[in-house]
Amino acid sequence: MKKTTIHDIARELDVTFSTVARALNDHPAISAATKAAVLETAKRLNYQQNKLASSLRSGRTNVIGIIVPSLDTSFFSSVVHGIEKVMNENGYSMLLYQTGESLKQEQKGIETFLQSRVDGIISSVSGEVEGREFYEQISKRQVPLLFFDRAINELPVPSVTINDYQAGFVATEHLIKEGYKHIAHFTSDQNLTIFKERFRGYRDALQQYGLPMNEDMICKGRLSLEFGKDSVTRLLEQEKNFDAVFAAEDYTAMGALQVLLERGIKVPQQMGVMGFANEAFGAFVTPSLSTVDQQTIRMGEETAHLFLKLIANKDFYGTTPERIVLDPILIPRHSSQTVEPR
Amino acid sequence: MKKTTIHDIARELDVTFSTVARALNDHPAISAATKAAVLETAKRLNYQQNKLASSLRSGRTNVIGIIVPSLDTSFFSSVVHGIEKVMNENGYSMLLYQTGESLKQEQKGIETFLQSRVDGIISSVSGEVEGREFYEQISKRQVPLLFFDRAINELPVPSVTINDYQAGFVATEHLIKEGYKHIAHFTSDQNLTIFKERFRGYRDALQQYGLPMNEDMICKGRLSLEFGKDSVTRLLEQEKNFDAVFAAEDYTAMGALQVLLERGIKVPQQMGVMGFANEAFGAFVTPSLSTVDQQTIRMGEETAHLFLKLIANKDFYGTTPERIVLDPILIPRHSSQTVEPR
Repeated sequence: MKKTTIHDIARELDVTFSTVARALNDHPAISAATKAAVLETAKRLNYQQNKLASSLRSGRTNVIGIIVPSLDTSFFSSVVHGIEKVMNENGYSMLLYQTGESLKQEQKGIETFLQSRVDGIISSVSGEVEGREFYEQISKRQVPLLFFDRAINELPVPSVTINDYQAGFVATEHLIKEGYKHIAHFTSDQNLTIFKERFRGYRDALQQYGLPMNEDMICKGRLSLEFGKDSVTRLLEQEKNFDAVFAAEDYTAMGALQVLLERGIKVPQQMGVMGFANEAFGAFVTPSLSTVDQQTIRMGEETAHLFLKLIANKDFYGTTPERIVLDPILIPRHSSQTVEPR
Repeated sequence: MKKTTIHDIARELDVTFSTVARALNDHPAISAATKAAVLETAKRLNYQQNKLASSLRSGRTNVIGIIVPSLDTSFFSSVVHGIEKVMNENGYSMLLYQTGESLKQEQKGIETFLQSRVDGIISSVSGEVEGREFYEQISKRQVPLLFFDRAINELPVPSVTINDYQAGFVATEHLIKEGYKHIAHFTSDQNLTIFKERFRGYRDALQQYGLPMNEDMICKGRLSLEFGKDSVTRLLEQEKNFDAVFAAEDYTAMGALQVLLERGIKVPQQMGVMGFANEAFGAFVTPSLSTVDQQTIRMGEETAHLFLKLIANKDFYGTTPERIVLDPILIPRHSSQTVEPR
């Protein structure tokens, strides 16, 4: 199981370690004959020359690392597909690392990528916010870094995100225009800009249309099918006066929808439901789930294009970081559209 | 953007390349003072010592590479979660590489992992079968290799798979017991054992219950929502005499279900639909989709445990490869269960 090392080749040829190391690195002090012998032996012993060695002069591995919270949701796997498509066409291989929303894992992923000498890192940060010093190490080492979807705005790092404020606004505005007046909001308890912005859009839409915001109808927790079920059940049992739910994530909306249907509450006639992220299942369920599309493939492609542009400039950290912000797209479906007048 | 190299450190200290290389590798011929100077300079210049260098003696990086066709389906992302959970607990980091069912990408992923000096590779192979010689390179280099879900049975490699024959059998048997007599099968045109085995199970179940198998009702293509729609539309327009569809994948079954409902055909009363893989959406749709669960989390955990066991033996390629085969679990839901007698 032990891998062939430079020492093994040196022993085999009865030369010094440094002769082998220099031969493998094409050092001018080593004769052509010795180089040939070293290469032959290296091949025979299945010595896998590391990208480090072969890229000592070029400084390139053509591998990019991508950090994602999770590939369970179609959101992240779809963005990653967009990134991969463009980067593969440009000769790069992509390695993925899942953090599971853990800062410790995120740091471990970054370290693993740095040690693998990736040519750059594309990251969507986890929900924890303390102790992000390791990102500064990346720029210190002059390894290109780019954020997508979830950025740390305080760091001077280029990013591709979506306008989550606008997304929260248009989702809420759609419900208001459909006639719903008491709109509950189910959101994450994570300290992430994306959720704060969606909430801000929700709040401002209510205000702009002269509707009151009721703190009791804002539920925070770990976004999931179960959280959606629990939240809507609690509001129903507390007999809160609400006629719509805007969830900051589709599975959470789906949980709410399931409970409403089980209890015989008609959607969309008695209650409107709006999700977020345009997960694949939303179009399949009955009633189909209204949602907000985040242009995932485009986000991935823009991320890759920005990365390639910046890497071509060879001055990734020299200029003011470029921040691309995409527009969300409202996807109204049956869960929020009243077919008959109410 | 250029990374600090051994050459940079050598230049800074005015010593030779080999002195630096040997110092970094703790070579006995280099004095303690020189080693200290090299390490100090390496740190100051942000030289990232590669895992290769630091692991030359230990031969370990504690990184494992996972090759998957795609993380778009909940099947693979769920298995990967199972693997990660166990491996993380044991101090390993996981890197992921998506092949998109392309053999070329699969080879590139393997090469990227080998060059990153991973401690092992866990792979689920792509649909293409020709030119798999690169897998032999892995064993030649004594890098541990393990297959999950999709294995190459011809290679002496340990694997964790599901009994796809049994899965195809029980799915078909369930439809027969529910009273369906003319069961179409939608499957992949990929040359993969998993799909051949599901088909064999389907065929044998029909035979065992004395039902004819009609070649006209076996549709092969690239499994997807669209393929399911197209296939069922074709069978309907050709007025084939069928009363159930068993699709080898859930999205394909969903496509069939959508077309049937659009055309006013009652599911399950007039037509039964059975999917495969227990994707998340199957429980949400109306009627809910019957399917076969592949014990994804358990498959991931078993894969990790087998890997750890074999790596601990330090003789990964010495013995007859262990092949673990898990049992599928039938998940009957409303799309195949007749509530009233037909």
